[in-house]
Amino acid sequence: MSIDLEQAEGTVTETDIVDAPADAPEAIPVRDEEGRIDAAFLQKVEDAIEAGDETAVRELAGDLHEADLGDLLEALGENDRPRLVQLLGGDFDFAALTELDEAVRVKLIDQLPAEDVAEGIGELDSDDAVYILEDLEPEEQAAILNQLSFSDRIQLQRSLDYPEESAGRLMQTDFIAVPPFWTVGQTIDHLREDHDLPDTFYEIYVVDPAFRLLGAVALDKLLRTKRSRKIAKIMTEERQAVAATEDREEVARLFERYNLVSAAVVDEGERLVGVLTIDDIVDVIQEEAEEDLRALAGVGDEEISDTVMVIARSRLTWLIVNLATAVLASVVISLFENTIEAMVALAVLMPIVASMGGNAGTQTMTVAVRAIATQELGSRNFWRVLRREVLVAILNGVALALLMGLVAGVWFANPGLGLVIGTAIIVNQLFAGLAGLMIPIILERLEVDPAIASSVFVTTVTDVVGFFAFLGIAALWFGLPF
Amino acid sequence: MSIDLEQAEGTVTETDIVDAPADAPEAIPVRDEEGRIDAAFLQKVEDAIEAGDETAVRELAGDLHEADLGDLLEALGENDRPRLVQLLGGDFDFAALTELDEAVRVKLIDQLPAEDVAEGIGELDSDDAVYILEDLEPEEQAAILNQLSFSDRIQLQRSLDYPEESAGRLMQTDFIAVPPFWTVGQTIDHLREDHDLPDTFYEIYVVDPAFRLLGAVALDKLLRTKRSRKIAKIMTEERQAVAATEDREEVARLFERYNLVSAAVVDEGERLVGVLTIDDIVDVIQEEAEEDLRALAGVGDEEISDTVMVIARSRLTWLIVNLATAVLASVVISLFENTIEAMVALAVLMPIVASMGGNAGTQTMTVAVRAIATQELGSRNFWRVLRREVLVAILNGVALALLMGLVAGVWFANPGLGLVIGTAIIVNQLFAGLAGLMIPIILERLEVDPAIASSVFVTTVTDVVGFFAFLGIAALWFGLPF
Repeated sequence: MSIDLEQAEGTVTETDIVDAPADAPEAIPVRDEEGRIDAAFLQKVEDAIEAGDETAVRELAGDLHEADLGDLLEALGENDRPRLVQLLGGDFDFAALTELDEAVRVKLIDQLPAEDVAEGIGELDSDDAVYILEDLEPEEQAAILNQLSFSDRIQLQRSLDYPEESAGRLMQTDFIAVPPFWTVGQTIDHLREDHDLPDTFYEIYVVDPAFRLLGAVALDKLLRTKRSRKIAKIMTEERQAVAATEDREEVARLFERYNLVSAAVVDEGERLVGVLTIDDIVDVIQEEAEEDLRALAGVGDEEISDTVMVIARSRLTWLIVNLATAVLASVVISLFENTIEAMVALAVLMPIVASMGGNAGTQTMTVAVRAIATQELGSRNFWRVLRREVLVAILNGVALALLMGLVAGVWFANPGLGLVIGTAIIVNQLFAGLAGLMIPIILERLEVDPAIASSVFVTTVTDVVGFFAFLGIAALWFGLPF
Repeated sequence: MSIDLEQAEGTVTETDIVDAPADAPEAIPVRDEEGRIDAAFLQKVEDAIEAGDETAVRELAGDLHEADLGDLLEALGENDRPRLVQLLGGDFDFAALTELDEAVRVKLIDQLPAEDVAEGIGELDSDDAVYILEDLEPEEQAAILNQLSFSDRIQLQRSLDYPEESAGRLMQTDFIAVPPFWTVGQTIDHLREDHDLPDTFYEIYVVDPAFRLLGAVALDKLLRTKRSRKIAKIMTEERQAVAATEDREEVARLFERYNLVSAAVVDEGERLVGVLTIDDIVDVIQEEAEEDLRALAGVGDEEISDTVMVIARSRLTWLIVNLATAVLASVVISLFENTIEAMVALAVLMPIVASMGGNAGTQTMTVAVRAIATQELGSRNFWRVLRREVLVAILNGVALALLMGLVAGVWFANPGLGLVIGTAIIVNQLFAGLAGLMIPIILERLEVDPAIASSVFVTTVTDVVGFFAFLGIAALWFGLPF
């Protein structure tokens, strides 16, 4: 339930406010208890689209928050999406496009006339406009840019010229900059008069005549200070000005580390060119943590809306790399064909040793990969962590060895077999711990992303060592041929 | 390089500002290029602590940002940490404790006198104070609370009474609330006069005489509006007031969805009791994404500073569960002992089928778990996603089958073996895709966290089906005994 009084500025009366909810469209809940778009609401919107009922569509979806509108669009069928946009007309907030999966967004923009998209994009904050434009095909991007006003076009083109995933792509180019000799009063008056301000802002910036960044003043500071005071006296020299070419991952780390809400972006000449705000960075922080998860599991940045071919192709690469690993493990087993022939129980038990190693290796590796990403693991604490991993591997190895040794000894009525599998498990747990820690560290030194490549190498080690240790120890212990 | 002019308020002159950098301690870089605490800087701090040189310690670490001070503490040895705090005395900012790993923080607080901790905590914002207190042992917590002023104690106790991981624990209880009939001018004057304001804030809140929340005004809005305007006219009715008992995960989702920077927290009576700000939520968002990653790999919320026993115990549970799974797979193999005895090549090749299934299952499962967590996968798109997973499994299954069939056929000079392994791979890929998608969905329906339990079940399916399909098809094809 929301009434944005701003929209009715100047005309609203106390009575209006009280009356508003009665005939407001939000009486129908937009989301169900799970937070998903409500099924009954969705049905109403679909019916209104079906009927081409502009008034009904506007009443239902005209006042939605961009996040709700975005989720509504995703919930609709592919063909209903452009129809919703067109029925809403001027009431459609193009900021909703920033909430869509890339595949859905690109498809929808393709279905809409370039003029409509250009008009909608022209009204957005520059960071949202760039976010929408950057994924489009070059021709489509050009077609939309050409419909924009000269100044908007130049501004967006400038952001788009920065490298992908850089601060320049994320920044908002509308911001407030004042000279240091202004007073607090002058600054507040300027804010009251200037109507071309960004949608929301948390700081104002202080620049010299060449637009070089001198400092920043948080809005709460501005509000708390007497009107007569000079801006120069209350500004904080920007601890954390970000270069426009800086990688967004680095920027996200800075925001996290210093709990920033916004940061100034400067070009090579230290001139202020834009502002980054936390809402853009939150997405980056989440994506970065998720990227590690996906990389470790061998899935790329696929989205739930991607097509079969895109997904199949991106996952196949990983599967083929792992196939090579699996074949290598088989080659190790084939060295012991005669051993297995002499004692088939070994074939039955051998996957256990390899699998326990794989699990332990994955545990250590996951912790190591994240600790490297968050810079908690470095040469400073390497030896302590190594010693710890070795001790954990020995402790857990002995526990698993006792348990599995007992099971195997009883199962095959062969205490020697229990002893063999127990020893092999301890050996493999130790290798798993070492590989899980060392492989991510070595990859990072080689400047390969540890999240992407670690698990193939760790599994190779735990499979090869697992099969080799178990079959080898068995052959020696029982005096079997190999 | 930072000069916080606020600290020198009223006394600083233009000359001071220009001169400040020359004798400021920050001439030594605190962090190296990687963003870690610089080794040379660390050495200087350690030397100063060793020498008990208060002046040197204050010069080096007295003006650090809380995040830098926190990382410095972690970089120091266990015994140097309390000494640094004591040498810094009043210059030590207890907010730095919020930047430490839990184990390090608890240990350090234990090493410090309760009075010192109470004094430091008394100066913090309430959310930081609660964050530090909540992990302590009840007696230690009580000892510190007892040293605080009555009003501070009541305030903190109230937050601590909310359930763990709730909004009430995260919120800041210092905030600004004004009545709706005040004007913008009155409000700004109030801000200038009130000296007991929170450190930073982005919104002010509007309440009725019973302190029930009526709305909020963003600071930029306040600054842009004429002094004579009534607050009631410019406030936004709070779309997103959060209940104090709400789970922090839900709250984080709300912040993400609506790009919030702060939100009001209300009690059961709709009374305003606190404010949540994005910097607290960013940590939650990151932890949630990371929790899924850790849960899928079978590691709990261990930290790089935890001890061997804590880690070994938390990881062992997972390993034992997986051991049961591995034994189950071995039971399946043991059904085919005679088959393997008749054709040892099967033992060599069988892990490949199971392993490829495990990899594909993990891929699908990872995507499904995250899509469930972010509410992108639901009944609405279930059938489309299922159809897609089946098609991807068939496509990739056929590709892997052709490749591995060829390798196996040539390796063992037995085209039939190639055919058998190819067929088994296709079957297992299909089961892997289905299990990877269905198991997380079923677990979610049963209200079990899909991230924690999925991978055990998925691996069980891909192992059992993998060994059974390969050995079974081989027995039938070659007419082997089983």
